[in-house]
Amino acid sequence: MPDKRPFDLLNEMLNKEVVLAIKGNKVFKGKLISYDIHMNLELFSVKERKDDGSFSDAQISKMLIRGDSIVYVYME
Amino acid sequence: MPDKRPFDLLNEMLNKEVVLAIKGNKVFKGKLISYDIHMNLELFSVKERKDDGSFSDAQISKMLIRGDSIVYVYME
Amino acid sequence: MPDKRPFDLLNEMLNKEVVLAIKGNKVFKGKLISYDIHMNLELFSVKERKDDGSFSDAQISKMLIRGDSIVYVYME
Amino acid sequence: MPDKRPFDLLNEMLNKEVVLAIKGNKVFKGKLISYDIHMNLELFSVKERKDDGSFSDAQISKMLIRGDSIVYVYME
Amino acid sequence: MPDKRPFDLLNEMLNKEVVLAIKGNKVFKGKLISYDIHMNLELFSVKERKDDGSFSDAQISKMLIRGDSIVYVYME
Amino acid sequence: MPDKRPFDLLNEMLNKEVVLAIKGNKVFKGKLISYDIHMNLELFSVKERKDDGSFSDAQISKMLIRGDSIVYVYME
Amino acid sequence: MPDKRPFDLLNEMLNKEVVLAIKGNKVFKGKLISYDIHMNLELFSVKERKDDGSFSDAQISKMLIRGDSIVYVYME
Repeated sequence: MPDKRPFDLLNEMLNKEVVLAIKGNKVFKGKLISYDIHMNLELFSVKERKDDGSFSDAQISKMLIRGDSIVYVYME
Repeated sequence: MPDKRPFDLLNEMLNKEVVLAIKGNKVFKGKLISYDIHMNLELFSVKERKDDGSFSDAQISKMLIRGDSIVYVYME
Repeated sequence: MPDKRPFDLLNEMLNKEVVLAIKGNKVFKGKLISYDIHMNLELFSVKERKDDGSFSDAQISKMLIRGDSIVYVYME
Repeated sequence: MPDKRPFDLLNEMLNKEVVLAIKGNKVFKGKLISYDIHMNLELFSVKERKDDGSFSDAQISKMLIRGDSIVYVYME
Repeated sequence: MPDKRPFDLLNEMLNKEVVLAIKGNKVFKGKLISYDIHMNLELFSVKERKDDGSFSDAQISKMLIRGDSIVYVYME
Repeated sequence: MPDKRPFDLLNEMLNKEVVLAIKGNKVFKGKLISYDIHMNLELFSVKERKDDGSFSDAQISKMLIRGDSIVYVYME
Repeated sequence: MPDKRPFDLLNEMLNKEVVLAIKGNKVFKGKLISYDIHMNLELFSVKERKDDGSFSDAQISKMLIRGDSIVYVYME
């Protein structure tokens, strides 16, 4: 196995804005505050993607996303 | 890994009103009374979100939500 | 973590009438007789919610509900 | 926790006719022969519920139902 | 708990023709060659049930079915 | 339990052409190169089944299929 | 069991362009940077497959895909 691990990317993403997709096709964008080994994530200042692909103005201040709901996370 | 963990947010949310989404697209709002390591949550004075996005008047006094039903939890 | 735990609520619900929702959108009402750490529940004198939101007259005497089918449980 | 446990009900159901619902909305009726800690169940002389709510005449002699397929089990 | 266990039925089914239903509503019939504790099953000379309820002529010689795909298994 | 185990069949299938069905109704055919205890499989020279039941000409050279996606595997 | 294991293929895929399918029928293409025992994957320079089968121009720089979302991974 390589020395690098996928969770290193989560570490690299800390305090940066990430986009994450959860099961059921919802997509959120927000600043990644913390994560744990279950891939539970805390986001700050979160926007939800609308049907037209843009993100909502309305922001959620603090959000906990359950790890097993997550499909992928990326930095743009 | 960062010192901060997503469950710290659950702790911060205690006795505050939270909004939580569960699988199957239901959304509830209520005061968070307790949680455990499985993310099972106890809510107090719970309202369910209606199709128009507003929350019901009818309140459920005490509710236990199973952790693996939860998709995300946030404070507004 | 708080001293109180979500399972304390299950304990509080014992011998009281509860409403529980299971995956696939079925809702049952009955007296909670017992539970275990998997959230398997035994109910007594159980009615199923009909499409119009009311509960059936027909009662099931004793019912075991599998914990991982459960979405939430509440007292009215 | 109470001394009584949901699996006590399975024990009480042994050699009695039970109705059980599995994921995907199928319902079977038969005599409960055995169970294990995963809630795998063995049924004897099993009938499947038809769309009109009645049960089939055709009987399956011996059936093993996988525990994690089960939603609930009850005695009428 | 009773001395008899549901897996005893699998043992009894060895080298007999069984019918098994898997998630997604497919049904197969074949001779049960082996099983393990995960309920993975090996079948021999397997036919798939067609929409009209009859089984295909075409036979699969040897088939491994993953245990967590299985809903129920029975002998006719 | 019998001495024979379902994974013995996987061993027997090594370096032979197998057909495997995964959740979501996709079917692949290819040579089985390796497997592990999670039933993760490596296939070589893989074709996907088309809607008409035939297999594609286009071949994937090397493919890893996640074990918990697998429903069944067989040799024709 | 054979000496070769399916995860050897992941190792072989490192720093190469792979195509991966996740649950819900999404397909991504990108360079595999790292993986772990849960099959969590890090991809670099990621394109999503469009409905016409071609891949998007727009690229995601760095992406973490959750292992239990993955159905299969291949090299073309």
